[in-house]
Amino acid sequence: MKEGLPDYDDVLEAAARIQGHVHRTAVMQSTELSRRLGADVHFKCENLQKVGAFKARGALNAVYALDDAHVRAGVATHSSGNHAAALARAASLRGVPAYIVMPSNAPAVKKEAVIGYGGQVIECEPTLAAREAAAAALVERTGASLVHPYDDPWVIAGQGTATLEYSEQASRPDVLLVPVGGGGLLSGTALAARARWPGTRVVGVEPLGADDAARSFRSGLLQTGDAPATIADGLRGALSQRTFALIRAHVDDIVTVREDSIMAAMLLVWRFLKVVIEPSAAVPVAALLEGYAASASVGVVLSGGNIDFTVLPALLAGRQG
Amino acid sequence: MKEGLPDYDDVLEAAARIQGHVHRTAVMQSTELSRRLGADVHFKCENLQKVGAFKARGALNAVYALDDAHVRAGVATHSSGNHAAALARAASLRGVPAYIVMPSNAPAVKKEAVIGYGGQVIECEPTLAAREAAAAALVERTGASLVHPYDDPWVIAGQGTATLEYSEQASRPDVLLVPVGGGGLLSGTALAARARWPGTRVVGVEPLGADDAARSFRSGLLQTGDAPATIADGLRGALSQRTFALIRAHVDDIVTVREDSIMAAMLLVWRFLKVVIEPSAAVPVAALLEGYAASASVGVVLSGGNIDFTVLPALLAGRQG
Repeated sequence: MKEGLPDYDDVLEAAARIQGHVHRTAVMQSTELSRRLGADVHFKCENLQKVGAFKARGALNAVYALDDAHVRAGVATHSSGNHAAALARAASLRGVPAYIVMPSNAPAVKKEAVIGYGGQVIECEPTLAAREAAAAALVERTGASLVHPYDDPWVIAGQGTATLEYSEQASRPDVLLVPVGGGGLLSGTALAARARWPGTRVVGVEPLGADDAARSFRSGLLQTGDAPATIADGLRGALSQRTFALIRAHVDDIVTVREDSIMAAMLLVWRFLKVVIEPSAAVPVAALLEGYAASASVGVVLSGGNIDFTVLPALLAGRQG
Repeated sequence: MKEGLPDYDDVLEAAARIQGHVHRTAVMQSTELSRRLGADVHFKCENLQKVGAFKARGALNAVYALDDAHVRAGVATHSSGNHAAALARAASLRGVPAYIVMPSNAPAVKKEAVIGYGGQVIECEPTLAAREAAAAALVERTGASLVHPYDDPWVIAGQGTATLEYSEQASRPDVLLVPVGGGGLLSGTALAARARWPGTRVVGVEPLGADDAARSFRSGLLQTGDAPATIADGLRGALSQRTFALIRAHVDDIVTVREDSIMAAMLLVWRFLKVVIEPSAAVPVAALLEGYAASASVGVVLSGGNIDFTVLPALLAGRQG
C-alpha cells in the first residue's frame, strides 16, 4: 500500500484475512436472461453473501486489520445501509463493540438489522452535519475506530476479494460491470481484475440521477453530487479522493443508466435468475438492457439483495404505470 | 418397479439418466430465517433448477426412458404449469416434438415459455373435458406419448432425484417438508428419503383451500378436490391412485396451511434467503411459520421460482391489506 492507496497485494491479504467469515458466493447464469440482455452474462452473486451484500467483505477486512490494542475500543460508522450491518457483524465476530450513527428517520428494518448483529444504534438528526458531529463525539467518547463505508484502504481491498474469488470460478469476461456509488466496490474490483484478468474492460455503471462518478471520470476532476435522485439507494454516495484516484488509474469507463432501466433490469434478474437483488445491484444489468456491451461476454457483480419489501408494491406499481 | 409403482431403484436409475441435463442445485440456509421460523432449516433450491422448477427432473426421466421407436413421434401433455415447459425442454434435448395442450385463456407468459423451449402449443376451450379431448385427439393424430405431470412412474422417480442429490449435500434432517398437489414430488421424495435418510419424518404440506391430499391421507380413501381455492397454483391438482398408494406407504403426515401464511412465508424467503420462489414453494415454509416442527432440524424442498410478475403488485397489495 502506497500513500493510503491499496494494491493487488492488499486484496490478496484481505482474502486470507476474511476467509471463513464470508461465503464463497455462486456464479450464476441463465440462457434466457442472456438472450434478453443480448450478451453472454455471468453473475457473481454477492446478494447471497453474508448480510446480503459484498459489504461484508470490506467491513471484515477493516475490522480484522486493526491491531488488538486499537480494536478493543470498538468500531464506528455513520451509514444506514449495508455497510452498517456488515460492520456490526464484523465487530461481533471479533468480539468488540460496533457503534452505528443513524438518522432518526432511518427505516426500522435497518436499525433492526444492525441490532440483530449486535451493533449499537446512536440516533441523530437527519442531516449530514448532525451525522458527522455525532460520529465525532462518539469516537471522542469511546475511542472507537471509524470505518468509512468506502473511503478506507482496507474496505476497498476487502471489496476486491469478490472479484478475486470470481476469477477462480469462471473464465475471463470481455467486460466486467460493477455499480458505482462511493467507488469502494469499483476500485477494489479493478485492483483484482487488473491482476487476474488483464484485457478485461472494467466498467462502472451509475444511475443518471446520481452521476457524479461519470462526470468526475470524464472531466478528470472530482465532482460532488448534489441531491442524488435515484431508486438505487446504495449508490447515492460520492467518490472520495482515494476512490477517484484508484478509478482513474484502473477503470476503463463509467456509464450511466436511466431509472426505468434499473427497475426493468431488477425484475428481469428476479424472474430469470430467480435471485432477489436490490435496485443498486440492477444498475449494471440496466446498462446491458440499454444495449451496452452487446454480444460480449460479460461479468456482473450483483452487489446486494436487501430490499425494503414494505415499499415494493409501490415500486412495482410505479413500474407498471 | 412393481405394478406401476416406482421404488428407490427407479430413483437411482432416474438420476443416472438425467445427469448432465439438470443443475445440481444449491442447499442454502439463513441464520435469520431459521430464527424467524423457529427451526434449523435447510433449503434445497429447486427454484434454481432448469426451467425454474423440480419438474425438469421428472419430465427428463420420462422422455429419456422411452425407447427410440416410441419417442420418435414425440411427447404430449395437458398442463399449463412448470411441467409443460419442462416437457418441452426435455423433448427438445432428445430431438423430438412436444405437444402441449393449453386452455385458450392460459397466460401469455406460459405459452411463451413452452414455445421458447421449442414446444408446440395446442389451444383448447378452458374446460377439463375439452383439455382431455384435445389431448386424446392429438395422441391419436400424432402417435405422441402422453406424459402426465405426476401420474407417471418415471415422472415420480425423476422428482425423487432432488432429494437423492440433497442427501449427498447436507446432513439428515429430523423432518423433510415438501409441497403436495398431485403428489408427484411428495411420493418421489419419500422414495429417496426412506432409503437415504431412515428416521427422517417425510411430511407433505398442502394449502387449506386445496386439501384433498390431507383428507385422503386421514381417511385412507382417495378424496377428490372440488374447486381448489389457493394462490399456490402449482398445488391445485388432486392425488392419483398411484401417488396416493406411494404416499400411504412412505409418507408420515400431511398438514395444511392458511393462505396468509403462504404469502408471508414467500416474502420471508425472498427477504432472507434472497431467492425468488413461487407461492407453491412457500407452502412448506408456511407450515414452519405456523409453528410446525418447532426447534427441529428441517429440510425443505423449494419446488419452483416461476412467478407471474404482472400479478405480483396485486398479490403484495393483498398481503398488505
